[in-house]
Amino acid sequence: MKDLPDTKNIGLRGVKVADTRISDVDGEKGILIYRGFNVVDLAQFSTFEEVSFLLLYGRLPTREELKVFQSGLVSERGVPEAVLRCLQMMPSSTDPMDVLQAAISILTGFDPQLREETREANLKKAVRIIAKLSTLVAAWDRIRKGLEPLPPRPDLTHAGNFLFMLKGSLPDPETARDFDICLILHAEHSFNASTFAGREVASTHAHLYASVAAAIGALSGELHGGANRQVMEMLLEIEEVNGVRSWVSEKLQKGGKIMGMGHAVYHIEDPRATILRGIGNRLADRSGDRKWCRLLEAIEVATKEEFRKLRGREIYPNVDFFSGAVYHMMGIPRDLFTPVFAISRISGWSAHIIEEKFAEAQPKPELYRPDADYIGNYCGLQGCEYIPIEERSS
Amino acid sequence: MKDLPDTKNIGLRGVKVADTRISDVDGEKGILIYRGFNVVDLAQFSTFEEVSFLLLYGRLPTREELKVFQSGLVSERGVPEAVLRCLQMMPSSTDPMDVLQAAISILTGFDPQLREETREANLKKAVRIIAKLSTLVAAWDRIRKGLEPLPPRPDLTHAGNFLFMLKGSLPDPETARDFDICLILHAEHSFNASTFAGREVASTHAHLYASVAAAIGALSGELHGGANRQVMEMLLEIEEVNGVRSWVSEKLQKGGKIMGMGHAVYHIEDPRATILRGIGNRLADRSGDRKWCRLLEAIEVATKEEFRKLRGREIYPNVDFFSGAVYHMMGIPRDLFTPVFAISRISGWSAHIIEEKFAEAQPKPELYRPDADYIGNYCGLQGCEYIPIEERSS
Repeated sequence: MKDLPDTKNIGLRGVKVADTRISDVDGEKGILIYRGFNVVDLAQFSTFEEVSFLLLYGRLPTREELKVFQSGLVSERGVPEAVLRCLQMMPSSTDPMDVLQAAISILTGFDPQLREETREANLKKAVRIIAKLSTLVAAWDRIRKGLEPLPPRPDLTHAGNFLFMLKGSLPDPETARDFDICLILHAEHSFNASTFAGREVASTHAHLYASVAAAIGALSGELHGGANRQVMEMLLEIEEVNGVRSWVSEKLQKGGKIMGMGHAVYHIEDPRATILRGIGNRLADRSGDRKWCRLLEAIEVATKEEFRKLRGREIYPNVDFFSGAVYHMMGIPRDLFTPVFAISRISGWSAHIIEEKFAEAQPKPELYRPDADYIGNYCGLQGCEYIPIEERSS
Repeated sequence: MKDLPDTKNIGLRGVKVADTRISDVDGEKGILIYRGFNVVDLAQFSTFEEVSFLLLYGRLPTREELKVFQSGLVSERGVPEAVLRCLQMMPSSTDPMDVLQAAISILTGFDPQLREETREANLKKAVRIIAKLSTLVAAWDRIRKGLEPLPPRPDLTHAGNFLFMLKGSLPDPETARDFDICLILHAEHSFNASTFAGREVASTHAHLYASVAAAIGALSGELHGGANRQVMEMLLEIEEVNGVRSWVSEKLQKGGKIMGMGHAVYHIEDPRATILRGIGNRLADRSGDRKWCRLLEAIEVATKEEFRKLRGREIYPNVDFFSGAVYHMMGIPRDLFTPVFAISRISGWSAHIIEEKFAEAQPKPELYRPDADYIGNYCGLQGCEYIPIEERSS
C-alpha cells in the first residue's frame, strides 16, 4: 500500500477496486457481456425481465423460475398510496431524478425486509425496487401534469406497462418490444460512476435502498446520465439535414465534441449503438417520419469524415447517440431520458450492490475510504493560530 | 496508469484520489485540523456556526461576516410545509436516516438556485441544507411521536435551537454549549466513506442535494455512522461497573472488539475523545448521575489493561466511545445519534462537495469511475451460449 503511485485527479481510472462476476466490456472487439452472455444475443432473444433475473442470480432462469420472477415483478408494481401522496406534495417543477431519489428513500418505510441483510432478502428487495421504479417515473410524469397516476396493468410486460402508465394508452406490441430491448441494453455496464456510488454506499453496510439512492444521484449528473438528452437537444438545434456538415465541421474545428460520438472504452462501434440504430429505423418505418433518423445518419457520416480529416482517426457512435431520438420517437419527454436509464440500470445496480454486500473475497473487502493529500494550511503556521473573534480585525 | 498495483478489496485505503485543503489528521501526534486550525482550539473558542463558515470559506470570518452568516442560517431554518407533510405520510417506524435522505431530495424542489452551479450559489445552498437538516431531524422525532414539529427559535444558537426543537423546552446554556462543541467535533474528518460518496456523486456534476443524499446514505451504514450507538448499546448491556472487567476480558479473549476503543488512524488518544470525556463529566456533574461516566471509565481502564496483557500494545478510546453516552445524557434518542452526526458533518460534506465541483487541478479531475477484474463466465465458453427459454431443460 505504501508504494501506490499517484492516482490523483484521474477519477480512479484503471484502479481496480474489486472482482466482479456481473459484466465485462471488450472495447477492442466491441463486445459487452452480462454474466457471460453477449448483450447482442440478449437483445435479440431475451426480455428485460429475464435479463434482470440473469443479472441478479448470475444465470438464466428455467421457464418456471422466469414465470415466478415475472409474477413477482408484476405483483410489486404498485406503489403505496402514501408515496404517491408525497409526490403530489412536490412542486411540479421538481426534477424527475430528484423525485426518484426521494421516492426510493420514502419507500424504505414500506419494505418489511428493509433490515434483513441476507442475499435472499436483498434479491426480494431488488425485485420490489425494479418493479416500482418504473411505476414511479410514470406516476411523476402524470402527477406533475396534474393527472392521477395510472395503476399498473398486470397483463403487460415490464416495458409495455411502463409505456402504458406513462401515456395512458396501450403501446403497439412492436414499440413495447423495442422499448424492452432498450431496457435490456442499458441494464448493466460494469463499474461506472453510478454503480460505483451504489457499491460505495453498500460497502458501509447501508441497505439496498440507501445504496440505490446514491446511484440515482450519480446518474443524475450531466457527465453520466445526461448524454442522450444532450444528443436530442443537438438534433433539435440542428433540425435540418442541410446544415449538418457545416455544423459538425465548425464544432470539431473549434475543438468541440459531437455528443454521442466516441467512447472511452469502445474502439469500434458500441454494440448497443448498432441495435439502437435499428430500433430507430423501425420506429421511423412504422410512423413514416424519418426526420430524426436522417439527421442522425447525416451527423454520423459527417462526424466520421471530419474526424478522419481533422484528427486522422475513426470515431463511432455510442449508445447515447441513438437512444435519445429513439425515446423521443416513442413519445418519452426529454427530461425522462435519464429516469428511463435508471429504470433499466436498476437491475445492474442491484446486482452490484448485492455483489458488494456478499463479496467472495477473504478477508471481506473494507468500506471504500480513499486518501487525499492535504495541501492547505497548518495550525501554528502561516498565520493559522486561532484568534478569538473579539480580537480579530474586522 | 498501466502500472497500478493491486488495490482490490482494500477499500481504496492509501489510494490518494485528490488534493484537499479542508482537513488533515496527524494520527501519530493526535492532531485534527480544519482548514489549518486545531480542532481543540475550535472546540474551546469557536462555535458550530463559525466552524461551518471556516469549512465552507477556508478562513475564519470577521465579526461582520459571522453575523451575516449566522443570520443566513437562522433565516433558513424553516422547512417548507409540504416537506413536513411528506414526513407525516411516512410510517412512524421509518429510520430517521432514511427520512433525512428522502427529505434532502424533496427539498430540491424548493431551492431557487438548485441548478446554479457557481461556487457562490453552492455556498448559499450549503447554508440552506446545514440550517434545515437539524430542523428535519427534530421534526421527524416529533412527527413519529404524533406531535406537531416545533418552529425553530431564531434567538437560539444552532445547537440550542436543535435541542429546543427536539425536546420542546429550552436547554440550559451549558448543555447547549456542550452540544455545540459536539457539533464542532464531528463537523469534518477528511475522506471518510460518506464524504467520499458525496464527492463521488458530485464528480458527475450532480447538484449539492443529490451529493449530500449519497453521503447520508453512506453514513447510515453501521460500519460508518453507527458506532456511537453501538457503544451506548454496550453500556446498556453491561449496566453495572462490577461486571465490566470480566465482560471486557471475555470479549477480547474471544477475538472480539470493544466498541469505541481503537482507531485506524489515531495511534494516541483521539483529541475529540478527550474533549467528549470532559463533556460527559460536566453533564454528569450537572445532573448528579455519574452512572454512564463511571461505566465508560471502567470499560476504558479494563480494555487498556486487557489489551496490554493480551496483545502487548496500547489502545485508546475514539470519538464514538464517549459521544453515545453524551447524547444519551442530553436526552437524545439512540436512533438519532447518527442523524445528529449528519447535522454536524453536513458542513464538512458541503465543503468537500464544493471542493470537488470547483477543484483547482488542471485538467479538471475526471468523474470517479474505477475498474474491476471480471472473473465471471465468458460467452461462448463454459456453456454460456444463449439458449432460448423454450429449448432450456425444465
